[in-house]
Order: sequence, then structure tokens, then C-alpha cells
Amino acid sequence: MMSLDDLETPIVLVDLDRVEANLQRAQDYADAHKLPLRPHIKTHKLPRFAKRQIELGAVGITCQKLGEAEVMADAGITDIFLPYNIIGASKLARLKALHERIAISVTADSSYVVDGLARTFTDPNHKLRVLVECDTGMGRCGVQTPWAAVELAQQIAAAPGLHFAGLMTYPAAGKVAENEEFLEKAKAALEAQGLAPDVISNGGTPDLWHAHDVGAASEHRPGTYIYLDRFQVAKGVGTLDDCALTVLATVVSRPTENRAIIDAGSKALTSDTLGMDGFGYIVGYPDARIVGLSEEHGTIDLSGSDKKPAIGERLRIIPNHACVVSNLFDNVTLISGDEVVETVPVAARGRVD
Amino acid sequence: MMSLDDLETPIVLVDLDRVEANLQRAQDYADAHKLPLRPHIKTHKLPRFAKRQIELGAVGITCQKLGEAEVMADAGITDIFLPYNIIGASKLARLKALHERIAISVTADSSYVVDGLARTFTDPNHKLRVLVECDTGMGRCGVQTPWAAVELAQQIAAAPGLHFAGLMTYPAAGKVAENEEFLEKAKAALEAQGLAPDVISNGGTPDLWHAHDVGAASEHRPGTYIYLDRFQVAKGVGTLDDCALTVLATVVSRPTENRAIIDAGSKALTSDTLGMDGFGYIVGYPDARIVGLSEEHGTIDLSGSDKKPAIGERLRIIPNHACVVSNLFDNVTLISGDEVVETVPVAARGRVD
Repeated sequence: MMSLDDLETPIVLVDLDRVEANLQRAQDYADAHKLPLRPHIKTHKLPRFAKRQIELGAVGITCQKLGEAEVMADAGITDIFLPYNIIGASKLARLKALHERIAISVTADSSYVVDGLARTFTDPNHKLRVLVECDTGMGRCGVQTPWAAVELAQQIAAAPGLHFAGLMTYPAAGKVAENEEFLEKAKAALEAQGLAPDVISNGGTPDLWHAHDVGAASEHRPGTYIYLDRFQVAKGVGTLDDCALTVLATVVSRPTENRAIIDAGSKALTSDTLGMDGFGYIVGYPDARIVGLSEEHGTIDLSGSDKKPAIGERLRIIPNHACVVSNLFDNVTLISGDEVVETVPVAARGRVD
Repeated sequence: MMSLDDLETPIVLVDLDRVEANLQRAQDYADAHKLPLRPHIKTHKLPRFAKRQIELGAVGITCQKLGEAEVMADAGITDIFLPYNIIGASKLARLKALHERIAISVTADSSYVVDGLARTFTDPNHKLRVLVECDTGMGRCGVQTPWAAVELAQQIAAAPGLHFAGLMTYPAAGKVAENEEFLEKAKAALEAQGLAPDVISNGGTPDLWHAHDVGAASEHRPGTYIYLDRFQVAKGVGTLDDCALTVLATVVSRPTENRAIIDAGSKALTSDTLGMDGFGYIVGYPDARIVGLSEEHGTIDLSGSDKKPAIGERLRIIPNHACVVSNLFDNVTLISGDEVVETVPVAARGRVD
């Protein structure tokens, strides 16, 4: 069997035992609170893990782009939520093709988007499920008030080929109460109009263990929970020992006493800081700081670290943000402990549209 | 002929006329100063542009990783400089295989690296060319003093299968004088030891038009000059109208008066700020600011912009850093004016090792 020493660096390692534990822990939590999970596959982009999520009890998956949904449908996934405004003739045609094959639902946050969907989907016997996206504090997409959600729901419900399926939000991390308030108000207002939502879909890993506190929500879409990362650990979702994705890198230079250069730069770790100091956590070197990245070099400041790695030494790095790392590598290497199980292509990598 | 309106977004556009003008301008400058160019292909990762750079007069190309060099060698490029510390049995074997096929040279900045090269390359009749990397102010890899460069050069020259070929630096932007001082001192010290360097290779686009001020340098390795980007424009290397690479995106949401959301996030533009405010420049909207990116959404603040784009409108964005954008997309679309010429795979994308 291959060991980690046989691998060329930089490379992405995914620890299968940790993946399984993270998936099981979240599903147990969801089951305990009777809150269906609809995991977001953007983190792993791998059909095998999407299937495992469903085996464990997930009601379906979430994809962020049509291209991801197409890959997952090709791999046999039959229930996909695409919480995105699908715009333009070509994308609407692709959505229609998916709708012919699998159960797919989308979101809208404006009349413009609903109009496009209504023109494309006209069959009252095979309606497209459309949820209204709500901005409950994130400041990204979404209608701004519960009343605007009702108005858009009415427009959806009035279109012969569309079914108003409910509400969706991606909440701001930490704003559990604001999120709950918005959704409760919208739900009540919808019910008053005879438009009770089938589903109220909430999301995110940072507040995963508080998902049941958003009482209005009827499903949750965590993504990063499968791998976790330095940011999620900082948010308290798990520990460093739960992180399943690491980048294996080699120290290629030790120009000074307190500087080490590794062969993993922004092409391996990305420049995402998510507001944190540095570009990742080096396993076994808690006081070493990754202070700079160029494309193919990472610069480590060892001034605070008594332990100093030598040239040629291999380091495992927990990235700040696992999802964006998955998107950089054509392949990831699945491991169990220190043994290599298999290297697999990241099937939905780079699906930007 | 296809027009930009026929393309799905987000997508990377590369303007061939601007590419040609940027390449020609740099080659003219280099010719005027009798300074050979050895362009870095990390920016474009496309064999066709590497070949064009050579047709215009470049003496060879630069790659940052073995995988990039392998792609370029497969495409017919015969002279490649790989300014990287190649470490480990597997990578040394790949380097050896390249050395059998093409003229390849590498760098070293420590005895550890030289030892590995010396063990692998032992044929005095087919020596590997090795340059000493010098840290002239960048704070990344490289020997720290001119005297350390001499010491390492002696070690290289003493190895039967290695040829000491000279010095290499990637200088800190703006530190032209410090760079020149280091290289002049090292050159003089080497000559005093009978180790006159064949080549002193300097790099970078930010100081491209000052490359001839580094009198010790005998070649220059610009990379980003082919496309330019928002950072290089800020450095004064060119204007916004010279930027050849743009990301075409669609406005998918206008949740508030002053917020627009586009379908290009960090998976299209990357989180690289390079110390600048925001994540790119929107052509035609000089006062709009891209203030946030999540993976598939870009958030634009329009509060300072009288002109406000509508949902469905397409925007062209000059990214902060063109090289990292090239690495995200499997394909780029070559254009001339507003006409689509061809969509081509980014052959050396994702070659991380």
C-alpha cells in the first residue's frame, strides 16, 4: 500500500475516516432534531460523497451552479436544489433539460428572474419548483423584507408552469435570531395569503449546531461540515482533529533561521483569509504562521515557533477555506490514517456556469 | 461569427489584439536595450502564446513547476528555465526526463538542493544548468548574501554533472536599486573566483520598464505583461485599455438600490487583493466597487456610482491578478474586439507539482 511519503506535493489529502465521522455527526444531529439535511456539494464536488450523504439520510443535495448539478445528475443523483437566479436563454435551456431528468428546484429573488422561468417552464403538469431567496442578514442576494417575499411568491404561484415551493436563505454567520425572525414573519405572511411554503431552507456550516434554533426552517444545507477547515474550527463547529482535508506540502527552502518556504502557494491554498491571520494551520506547528503566498510559494514565519521544519520535510496544512481548495485541484487523494486509498478526479471542479 | 452575447458567464475573455500589442511592446523595449526576454508562462499557461513569445524574439520561456514545463515541452518548446528548488526522488526523475528531451535549467538556494541535483545528474557530457537563486529583497527563496551565492556556485561547479550557469532573482517590486546592488556584488565576487555567470536572470512585470536599470542582469522574465491586470495598471506598467484578460459576468440580482450581485465570485476572480481595495475593476463602471466575493457571487457596491447596471446586464471585469484567474478556468475564450475567435483549453492549468 502507498504511504503519504510516496506522493508528490503539493497535493490534497482527504481523510475518509474523518469524512465519515463528520457526515455521521451532522446526520445524527439532524435526526435528533427532525431537521432534514440537504448538503451542499460545493465543498467536495465528488459524486461519491454526495451519494454517501444521501445514504446517511440526506433528502437530496444542493449545488450552486448548473454545471455542478449536471455532473451530479450524470452521476445518478436525482434530487437537486440549485439556489441560484438562473438567467439567460442558454442557462434556462440547460435548466429545462435537467428538469426533464431529475427533481430540480431553483430560487428567484426578483420579477426578472421569475419572468424568465415562467417563459421557459409552461407545463402545468410538470411544474418547476421555485423558492424565494430571502436576504436575512447576509447582504448578498435575496428579497429584503418578508412582504417582498410574499409578493414574489404570488408571482411564482400565478405562473402556470411554476410551483411556489417555499423560502430559502443563506444566513449571515452568527445571526441566528435575525434569520429566525425574518423567516417566521415571511412564513406567517405567506400562510395568511394561502401560500404556505412546502419548505423553508436554511443553510451554512458555521451555525450548524444551532440550525434547530431557526424554528421556521424545515431543512438545512450545510456544505463545509464534511471537511471542516480552519475557519469552521474558529467558529467552533469542530476541532482541528476533525478537519478531513489537508494540503500536503514540502519545505523547499529555509533561507533564514525563521523563514521556511513551502511548495504550496495561492494555487494550492488560495488567498482566502475569511478575516483570519495567515493562510492556514500547519499540523504539528501550532506557532508557525503562513504569512504570505505567491502562486507557487508559501512563506512561513517561524519566529514564534521553537520547532522549525527542515528542508525536505513534509507539512500538512489545514486550509482556511476547504471549498476553494477543492476547486483548484484536478484530483484529490483519499487516505485512511497514513495510508493512501485512492486518487480520484474532482468531478465537479471548475464548473463555474 | 459568435459575439460576446452568445457566451455563458462567467467566462474568461482574452483579447488577442491586446495580447499581441503587449508582447510586441515588451519585445521592442527589450530589443532597444539588448536585454533578452525569457517570459514566464504562468500568466497564460497556453502553448500558443509561449510560441508567439519565442517567435517575437524571446530566448526561451520560464515555468514555475515541473508540470508546466512538461506541458510546454510536449507542445514543442525546447528551452525552459524552471526557477525552483527541485526536491525529492520523484521530481528529480521527472526533471531528468525533461533534461533528456530539451534544454532545461533550474535554480538552487541551498546545499540540500544542490546535493539532490548532483546525485541525480552525473554525466559530465550532458550537464544540468543550475543557477543560484538570490533573495535581493523579496523575502522568499534565495541565498541571503552575495557571498552565500558564491559559496553555492562553488558547490555546483564542483559537481561533475552540474554546470553553474549564473544567478536568478525574483525582485521585490520597486526595489530596483537594492536588486542591482546585490547582483553586481555577487557578479564581481563570482568573477573574482573564476566563476563568471553565463546569465543573470531578473524577473517581474511591475518593474518591466526599469529592467534595463538593473545593469547586472542579462535577461528578464516578465509574466503578467502579456495580459496585464488591475495590479499592474496600479504599478503603471500599462493602462486599463491595455488589459487583455477580462472576466465576463452577468448581474443576477439587484437586491437594493446600491447593491448588485454578479455570477462571478472567488471561483472566477480569486480573493487576491494584492493590497488593493476590492476585487477587480468593472469596465465602464469606474466608481462601482467589488466589495465582496463568495464562491459563486460577487457583491458590488454602487453607492458611489451614478450609473447602475440592471439585472441581466453583462459586465467585463479586469481582475486584480490575471495569473490566478487563468488557473481557475479549464478554458479561455479568445476574442478580437467583440468577436469570438476560439475557445481553447488552458493546457498548463492546475499543474501544481
